[in-house]
Amino acid sequence: MLLRNRLTEKFGIDYPIVLAPMDYVSDWRLANAVADAGGLGILGGGYGDSIWLKEQFAHDPNERLGVGFITWSMAQQPGLLDMVIAHRPSNVFLSFSDPAPHAPAVLDAGIPLICQVHNIEQARRAIHVGASVICAQGGEGGGHGMGVRSTFTLVPEIADLLRTTAPEVMLLAAGGIGDGRGLAASLALGADGAVVGTRFATAAEAALRDSAQQRALEASGDHTIRQQAFDVVRRKAWPSQYTGRVLRNAFIDRWHGNESDLSMDLDEQRRAFEEAVEGEDYGLANVIVGEVIGLIDSVNTAASIIAEMVGTASSILGRISPNAVLIDATTPKARS
Amino acid sequence: MLLRNRLTEKFGIDYPIVLAPMDYVSDWRLANAVADAGGLGILGGGYGDSIWLKEQFAHDPNERLGVGFITWSMAQQPGLLDMVIAHRPSNVFLSFSDPAPHAPAVLDAGIPLICQVHNIEQARRAIHVGASVICAQGGEGGGHGMGVRSTFTLVPEIADLLRTTAPEVMLLAAGGIGDGRGLAASLALGADGAVVGTRFATAAEAALRDSAQQRALEASGDHTIRQQAFDVVRRKAWPSQYTGRVLRNAFIDRWHGNESDLSMDLDEQRRAFEEAVEGEDYGLANVIVGEVIGLIDSVNTAASIIAEMVGTASSILGRISPNAVLIDATTPKARS
Repeated sequence: MLLRNRLTEKFGIDYPIVLAPMDYVSDWRLANAVADAGGLGILGGGYGDSIWLKEQFAHDPNERLGVGFITWSMAQQPGLLDMVIAHRPSNVFLSFSDPAPHAPAVLDAGIPLICQVHNIEQARRAIHVGASVICAQGGEGGGHGMGVRSTFTLVPEIADLLRTTAPEVMLLAAGGIGDGRGLAASLALGADGAVVGTRFATAAEAALRDSAQQRALEASGDHTIRQQAFDVVRRKAWPSQYTGRVLRNAFIDRWHGNESDLSMDLDEQRRAFEEAVEGEDYGLANVIVGEVIGLIDSVNTAASIIAEMVGTASSILGRISPNAVLIDATTPKARS
Repeated sequence: MLLRNRLTEKFGIDYPIVLAPMDYVSDWRLANAVADAGGLGILGGGYGDSIWLKEQFAHDPNERLGVGFITWSMAQQPGLLDMVIAHRPSNVFLSFSDPAPHAPAVLDAGIPLICQVHNIEQARRAIHVGASVICAQGGEGGGHGMGVRSTFTLVPEIADLLRTTAPEVMLLAAGGIGDGRGLAASLALGADGAVVGTRFATAAEAALRDSAQQRALEASGDHTIRQQAFDVVRRKAWPSQYTGRVLRNAFIDRWHGNESDLSMDLDEQRRAFEEAVEGEDYGLANVIVGEVIGLIDSVNTAASIIAEMVGTASSILGRISPNAVLIDATTPKARS
């Protein structure tokens, strides 16, 4: 209760905790689990798949979930965004490449627009196109991003920018947040809330294979790396400024930095990669997690993850019975 | 007062704020200014310069300052560490390369050893050699580091490691901390205190030219980059895993990624670089700052910097008169 703020009020949620719209992983089960536990659930629309999205919408009768997209990929599919807008999601969350061509349709429909940014220039652009919320993602985050800034400095620098130029725009921190310490730090740095990816990817309700989750749980943050080799082998035409953080494995050791060699042998390597994905061989297949994986050692329900985050953050921020603590400290005899 | 903890107790300071031992920049004036204001002052011994160090010690009659070194460079100068130990600094702060060969001399003298680390493997090593304090530095920091981990995830992951394996070892956060929001976030993430570099490099007492400070104040964190080209032109033989964060400028645009070309033309380029340093031409000369420079827009005294950090962090962490706030909120008439 004590973490309520303008973000929770705007979206009608209990806690300033947002599910990262992880491609396929953030499906209706996970998004509803987060929403049921008081957070903001956002579906991982990813590259864009209308059939998948319609399945998800069938499980969102109250239209409380948002939808996130990899913007440059969504933009290649005419009508996809309109289909989503017609469902009236609680928000549209656009990441990776310019949101300007898509913002008017979202805003004209009265749907809050969340724009993910990775540097100050992109933050200015997001303000310009009318974002309701800016999500500032540091390079420690899992999956795609830019890796040029870190959460610890990007969040307060954008908070300062918003304070002076667009105080009505809210701010989310993303990248590295996996527990109550991270939520408290996000709020301390000036964010209105935190976007949580990796921790929810290792939730019981996540649409991620058990074997991938188990592989992830064994890792330290040291075992992650930003790379592009998996995009090459998957034939995903990412703009060159974006890299993706994944677990290091034999595939990365061989191809990271040697992407042109990989391109020369793409058919063969793609076949091997797809076999590895199918066979759950994570020496070759990708496991997409951020640095924060080093803090995670068990699969938990979304509800228990959120309960820990809220309890710990409230305690750190002195929002649990500050009165009682002071009385304990200053008049110990009152205890008896 | 309310930020006192085991770190402030150990070092006899008022606030858990530590001056980063920035090479030459953290001289006796700056270190004493930080110490006078209640923080922990550490001299920037850097590459190692016994004449400079003796000058500093002459201004530390109460032996309250620490001394930091670039370890691999200090190690090339026999007797330097012994000279420092004989002065009995309040701590020895070792960064960059294995502290093991030097730890016994420091510990045998009963001097607290602070080891700066950039990943989990180095943290385990620091525990093993007997560090009293581990400084976890994320890649957002200015100057040298590894850039493989960020402060936001490295601090809590090492906090967890210490809790389970060496709870007596204290933890400092470094990289990205420039104001009270950052101090609060550091403590929230599990650190016992924060190491502050860039913010103190832009202090009134810092041994940095006014022109360099002014150039820095104009920058956003987006204008910084991790690189090695300045080490090449300065003929500093850094181990290859270390890079340094600086302001981007024309020198970086030309040579970053083209270090082998730079090596081929080193005499000429070195001459031009040295002229630029002398002439305060920061299109070519280096300005060493971290991403947090984007939060800093004025030169302030160390005392005012610390006052802001303490006031803001205390407020964020609910440590300023929570009782009074509560009473204000619930019984407003009591004010009159």
